[in-house]
Amino acid sequence: MKALVFDNGLLLKTDWKKPVPAPGEALVRVTLAGICATDLEITKGYMGFTGVLGHEFVGVIEEAPDERLSGKRVVGEINLGCGRCDYCKHKVENHCPSRKVLGIKAKDGAFAEYLTLPFKNLRPLPDNITDEEAVFIEPLAAAFEILEQVKVNEYTRVCVLGDGRLGQLVAQAFATTDCSLLVLGRHEEKLSLLKARGIPTRTIAEGLEKAFDLVVDCTGSPGGLSDALDLVRPAGTVILKTTVAQRPGADLNRVVIDEITLIGSRCGPFAPAMQALEERRVDVKSLVSKVFPIEQGIEALAYAAQKGVMKVLIRV
Amino acid sequence: MKALVFDNGLLLKTDWKKPVPAPGEALVRVTLAGICATDLEITKGYMGFTGVLGHEFVGVIEEAPDERLSGKRVVGEINLGCGRCDYCKHKVENHCPSRKVLGIKAKDGAFAEYLTLPFKNLRPLPDNITDEEAVFIEPLAAAFEILEQVKVNEYTRVCVLGDGRLGQLVAQAFATTDCSLLVLGRHEEKLSLLKARGIPTRTIAEGLEKAFDLVVDCTGSPGGLSDALDLVRPAGTVILKTTVAQRPGADLNRVVIDEITLIGSRCGPFAPAMQALEERRVDVKSLVSKVFPIEQGIEALAYAAQKGVMKVLIRV
Repeated sequence: MKALVFDNGLLLKTDWKKPVPAPGEALVRVTLAGICATDLEITKGYMGFTGVLGHEFVGVIEEAPDERLSGKRVVGEINLGCGRCDYCKHKVENHCPSRKVLGIKAKDGAFAEYLTLPFKNLRPLPDNITDEEAVFIEPLAAAFEILEQVKVNEYTRVCVLGDGRLGQLVAQAFATTDCSLLVLGRHEEKLSLLKARGIPTRTIAEGLEKAFDLVVDCTGSPGGLSDALDLVRPAGTVILKTTVAQRPGADLNRVVIDEITLIGSRCGPFAPAMQALEERRVDVKSLVSKVFPIEQGIEALAYAAQKGVMKVLIRV
Repeated sequence: MKALVFDNGLLLKTDWKKPVPAPGEALVRVTLAGICATDLEITKGYMGFTGVLGHEFVGVIEEAPDERLSGKRVVGEINLGCGRCDYCKHKVENHCPSRKVLGIKAKDGAFAEYLTLPFKNLRPLPDNITDEEAVFIEPLAAAFEILEQVKVNEYTRVCVLGDGRLGQLVAQAFATTDCSLLVLGRHEEKLSLLKARGIPTRTIAEGLEKAFDLVVDCTGSPGGLSDALDLVRPAGTVILKTTVAQRPGADLNRVVIDEITLIGSRCGPFAPAMQALEERRVDVKSLVSKVFPIEQGIEALAYAAQKGVMKVLIRV
């Protein structure tokens, strides 16, 4: 089958072996996949992963333990726990120390004609969510994860730092709440997408008080934490949403002195993300920059790595 | 009056001007003061402070807005808010952006015959707390601050990292709860003080699982956070209790991936610390290494900076 493989370089394979479902797994024919910053990091050596890339996808079940679901359109949660440890027993497979992760760790991913995933990871899609929308459910779930970790209300002043792919989804997730929201970015054209949805935005250059209850760092840049600490009030909360190669560690003294709570945030549950899409409370279609066929997968990743590009999709 | 002053070097003054209480302030005759790691940091340039050092003290009120309290033995909270900002209005003077801090920021401290503090910062001492104990109330309050920030119960596995001055007080604060507690240190003789109080201890060399719900970094060392992240479970909590000159910032990626909550912790309320001392639920007397008269204040700070030394006191 066709597959976009990372193995000491990015390769388009046409004879990659079609995966065979393990017990409990389903075989999924991929129809559309999304390129994430993590995919780009992996091509630079992050996680030491080799194999088929990709973890944001929508597809159709071809074989499943439950025959009634054959032919169903699905998305899938990407963490595969060992099933035996305490985390798995308590249904937090996300944190299983020996977990595999689709297209990221020890499990071939979604930039291919077929993938396999445990049947229990798959979520059937309602008809009113298109493929182009469904492919955003995984990153949107990561945005909604923040709302699982902290509670906000009408008095909570929230600042989302960054107007890129992740910042857009995080901002939209917060916009489903009644918090007081501001997005700070550097790109007028990206901020205009949020403005069009009634979300207040500013460019970083303008000065702001150190008065936000909650600041979410979606910059993906080494200076993001420092910028967040300039904006969060004493005893406030900063959410770290991205891994960064190098960060200044001395910033943590500011965390001690101002008694800041710093919360790391990664993958999230699919249900609230799917529900928000279904109820049209978020819009993801405007975030698609370009769609490439899988035969042009290498070009697709190069395109996604360019400045100013939002979401790039791969059609299989 | 006699005073131990930092001004481009540590100086013992005998003609330092006796402070005059501002409106709302009391004049306190200092009887005993404690040397803290922060004092040692200030002598290396931390905070850019110049003036009388010292913020852990016990003394006697000589002049106060309320005459009935003259002659009372007191301790004092060290943050002086501006009284006008939102933090001060909500009684969180600790976080007033323009606060002064006794012996640390823009306010002469306790290593002197007299100090002044707002009357509302002073706490009269019950008779059954000795001066030698009372001088520990400020750092003990900083230890109890953690219990204001996180809730623990019988199921919470807590690890305190570090067996020095701060680690000892933090461990004793947690020992007043019903949590499952372990202190990890490098010094058998310091750990033996905790063992004698029935607190489980281990030396760091021995291996441990990454399974603690809560890890408190009291090491004061650049590697403390990394050690804490080796011990805390996914989605667990790490308390940062000390500022450190340099820390590896890349550790924050582990915070993101494991969805750790990192909480900075500084000063705390005096009431729980005083109550614990009064009810004999903590013991601080065994932590006193040596008492120096103020005339030997310079020697006292040099002694406190030596390895293996616990708390050094200055008698005025």
